[in-house]
Order: sequence, then structure tokens, then C-alpha cells
Amino acid sequence: MLKSTYEGQNCSIASALEVVGERWTILVIREAFLGTRRFDDFQRNLGIARNVLQTRLGRLVDEGILERRPYQDRPVRHEYRLTEKGIDLFPVLHALRFWGDRHSGGEPPVIVRHRGECQGVIDDRRICETCGAEVSAREVVATAGPGYVPRPERAA
Amino acid sequence: MLKSTYEGQNCSIASALEVVGERWTILVIREAFLGTRRFDDFQRNLGIARNVLQTRLGRLVDEGILERRPYQDRPVRHEYRLTEKGIDLFPVLHALRFWGDRHSGGEPPVIVRHRGECQGVIDDRRICETCGAEVSAREVVATAGPGYVPRPERAA
Repeated sequence: MLKSTYEGQNCSIASALEVVGERWTILVIREAFLGTRRFDDFQRNLGIARNVLQTRLGRLVDEGILERRPYQDRPVRHEYRLTEKGIDLFPVLHALRFWGDRHSGGEPPVIVRHRGECQGVIDDRRICETCGAEVSAREVVATAGPGYVPRPERAA
Repeated sequence: MLKSTYEGQNCSIASALEVVGERWTILVIREAFLGTRRFDDFQRNLGIARNVLQTRLGRLVDEGILERRPYQDRPVRHEYRLTEKGIDLFPVLHALRFWGDRHSGGEPPVIVRHRGECQGVIDDRRICETCGAEVSAREVVATAGPGYVPRPERAA
């Protein structure tokens, strides 16, 4: 059960924001959707301070949005994977992306497409423009759009 | 053009969060969708400090999400109305509401319905479950759900 710190708020939007309302938190979740799993990769891709990242990842694990799984024994190393609850945030990120694209004044850096053979563009209702399928998070793939700029390389 | 403070982020989600990523900001927008227009009503409904509210409203006006309109001449008084850019945030709020409902463990406090005669429930793709219409923000109405708790009365 989510705890709300908003006095007198009986609202699902308020409870959702209580968990995911912080900006870096959403960007960590976006990275996880793009396939990032390891601490150092989150850190490099987001350019976020290690202590801030550690706090955000810990909070997301506590809230059941990410889970921490060992991927190596000696020494033990963990990676972070989206849970079902985390994957259920796909519509929120998709809606944010559409709004950002429409109002940024630039070309979209990312186009979300139907995974596999179809490759149709996914519309703002998460429906494939090519085959009409109502797609889930697992059926899409993020591809470079006309506004894509490769990430600057960082020193390892 | 939105300015991003996230180093090396070429991402519509990051730019969207740059504007609406703060939690109170989204709740102010939610209030505007529910029909709140006047400063004192935002203040009472959200239970937010007046200076915080003033800052958030000013930011939303600067970003073109709300507009300030005079509604009274002597003395001049203003109200805040969603612009088209603001109304375009409906899918984001709708997605946040669905996620909050699914993962809160409680009954939904609000059910979004097709406005007018239909009154069908709007699904998570913003499609009416009764008539199949792909609805926009102007075609829906928020109604009390099974988890609805009336707002506590506050002293005027």
C-alpha cells in the first residue's frame, strides 16, 4: 500500500507520484526499459551522481518496481531488472514521450515500433499503426528517430 | 523549446519531466482538469502552501500549460485555465491514474467515463469500453469510484 504525504488526497495520481514523481526516478526507469541493468551502466548513461543513483535504485527496489538479481558469484555482483509493477509503467513513459515530442519543437529522437517483423510505429494509444495490434511493453522496441543524437562517449 | 538540465540527455521523456516532473506540478494540473480555476480553490483543494502554489502556477503559465485570464474587473482578478498544451497532458495523467489504481491495493477513487449519454468507462488506452470511441480529454468526465472518499471540509 502506497503511503501518501499529500494531506487529504484520495487520488491514484497522487499515490503514483509518491513513488515515481521524482525526475531522476523516471529516467532510471526509462533506462531500465532501454535494457540497462548494471549500476555502472545506469551511472554512465544518466550522468548521475553515484550516491543519488544508489538512493533512487534502492527506493525503486523497496517499492517493487525494480528487483536486484545476482549475475556473478565471485565477487557477488547484482543487476537491476524491472518487475511486472515496473513494466506496468510503460504507458506513463509512453505518454510522457509523446507529449515531450509534440511540444519540444524538435524532431523525435526516438520512435517506438512494434517489435519483430511488423516494425509499425506505435501510436499514442499504444496501438500499432501498421497492424492495429494493442501492444504491451514487451512487444515494442525503441528505435532512433529523425531527432536522434548519439550519446556522447564518456571516459570509462 | 524546453531546456534540459540533464547532461547528455536527448530524450523527450527528460524534456517533459523538466516541465512537469515535480509532484505538486502534476497535482496542480490534475486540479485544473477537474475544473479548478481560482488560486484560493487550488490552495484549498490541494492543501498546498500559498507561496509554493504561486511558484508552481507561475511556472506552468511560463511553460504555456496554463493561461491566466481576468474574470473580474474591480478589483482585477485572474483565473488559471489549461491551454491546448496543458490539455495534451491528459494521457500522462490518465496513465498515472491507471498505474496508481492497479498497484495501490485499494479500490479506485475515481472512474473516468465518456461524457454525455454514453457514460462508458474509459480504458487505459483512452478508448470507451461501451461505444469504442477513441476519446480526447474534452470527452471524458471524472466520476466517483468505489474507493472515493469525500474531501475533508476545511475552514473557509
